[in-house]
Amino acid sequence: MTLVVKIGGGAGIISETILREIAQCVAGGQRVVVLHGASDLTNTLCERLGQPVQMITSPGGMVSRYTDGATLQIYAMAVAQINTELVAQLQRGGVNAIGLAGVDGRLLVARRKAAVRSLAPDGRQRILRDDYTGKIEGVNDALLRQLLDAGYTPVIAPLALSRDGERLNVDGDRAAAAVAAALHAETLAIITNVPGLLADPADATTLIHTIPAASLADYMDFAQGRMRKKLLGAQEALQGGVPRVCLGCSSLLAILNGAGTTIAPLQTQ
Amino acid sequence: MTLVVKIGGGAGIISETILREIAQCVAGGQRVVVLHGASDLTNTLCERLGQPVQMITSPGGMVSRYTDGATLQIYAMAVAQINTELVAQLQRGGVNAIGLAGVDGRLLVARRKAAVRSLAPDGRQRILRDDYTGKIEGVNDALLRQLLDAGYTPVIAPLALSRDGERLNVDGDRAAAAVAAALHAETLAIITNVPGLLADPADATTLIHTIPAASLADYMDFAQGRMRKKLLGAQEALQGGVPRVCLGCSSLLAILNGAGTTIAPLQTQ
Repeated sequence: MTLVVKIGGGAGIISETILREIAQCVAGGQRVVVLHGASDLTNTLCERLGQPVQMITSPGGMVSRYTDGATLQIYAMAVAQINTELVAQLQRGGVNAIGLAGVDGRLLVARRKAAVRSLAPDGRQRILRDDYTGKIEGVNDALLRQLLDAGYTPVIAPLALSRDGERLNVDGDRAAAAVAAALHAETLAIITNVPGLLADPADATTLIHTIPAASLADYMDFAQGRMRKKLLGAQEALQGGVPRVCLGCSSLLAILNGAGTTIAPLQTQ
Repeated sequence: MTLVVKIGGGAGIISETILREIAQCVAGGQRVVVLHGASDLTNTLCERLGQPVQMITSPGGMVSRYTDGATLQIYAMAVAQINTELVAQLQRGGVNAIGLAGVDGRLLVARRKAAVRSLAPDGRQRILRDDYTGKIEGVNDALLRQLLDAGYTPVIAPLALSRDGERLNVDGDRAAAAVAAALHAETLAIITNVPGLLADPADATTLIHTIPAASLADYMDFAQGRMRKKLLGAQEALQGGVPRVCLGCSSLLAILNGAGTTIAPLQTQ
């Protein structure tokens, strides 16, 4: 049983509860791979270092970070700070965690986007160049299997390698989806700071508990901002053969038991 | 044949020449493990983030960084920025590099120094607590062998794990010595920004070409500041069974051929 857990980079998402639950899953014999984000720390560091934070919206409505060379360096530092701290915390909890960035051993190879389209609030499009973001095209699943076989729990930072050997910022949710598909994981769990997909983002009681995989596209309209990327990641995982994607907050085990939004071919509730 | 290469964290030590030479060694069938420092970038980041840089001198004359919690976070980010960039550069040169921090898979386990003695210029001693530095007590050589066997070139950041699961700043030269000893490496090459041990630190023509291992202690008086740590690292490597330590700058192959200072049981020139 392989479980891929994506822990969001928003403030406070990494909790003692989540870490303890990961340790329980590992102790119970599951093969667990963790991915994490670093959005909040990247913003904080950019601010402290005087580097403007620029979020851009694609014509398709996807929000992402404009990552020039200076931002890429800050991003690389932020993901590593979280990665090594997460590894140390898991080690304290008895998990033999091993941190890797996507550049390591060509773990995540991505195609750099030569030009990125950005939609201004007035509807006009801008073309941005010198952006170091990419789309994942390959996962070194042999490396992950080798580490899992040896008893390690990989903890992956979404810093991919381009075919030209550049470091690239890649989306953590979509990276988790690519890893889950490459490992034929049974479940991708996406832990974030909202209880799941909400019919009304302002009202937590409108949680959508289950989404049939075949109808996922119909639910895209409910997703705002970063939630669109999570659903896109879910879609890519399902298309890659992952049978189930669970999305939610606070507790990994609760999410796996259906407390958040579960996306699967058949309703599994 | 296993070769451990320590690349210093001073400005400009990582060069195209060094990276190309590492690629040549790997292509020639050598098992290479790289360690690196981050002293310069840590200082720069501390300055930009308003964190004081505090170097302390032990009663034995060793200079090291006082690493409180805030400095540790900056140090973790600095080593990772260098680690991922080094991995990307090596990947561009055809080396399947894989970056690891010492926390990963308990690669470097260290004992935290509960209290650190610092010698003030007036000769008075201070006791510093809340310092996150450590002395390496264990190396997970099985992990390194597994990665080397699979064709990877490990690139290690000197951020160790304490027995209590804390991240610790450990000296890069001494970490390289511990790794070289654990792997039974034939050579430890320490690349720095001076040509080797100089009888007169101000005069590069006073380079000491060879030091018999048994007499290394006698040469300690020539070593100033950070050079003392390098000789201490050399001593620990030799005591750990590494037959040869080469120290110098500019070119790995030149250093291996005796262009710097070579420390070995018999004079190898």
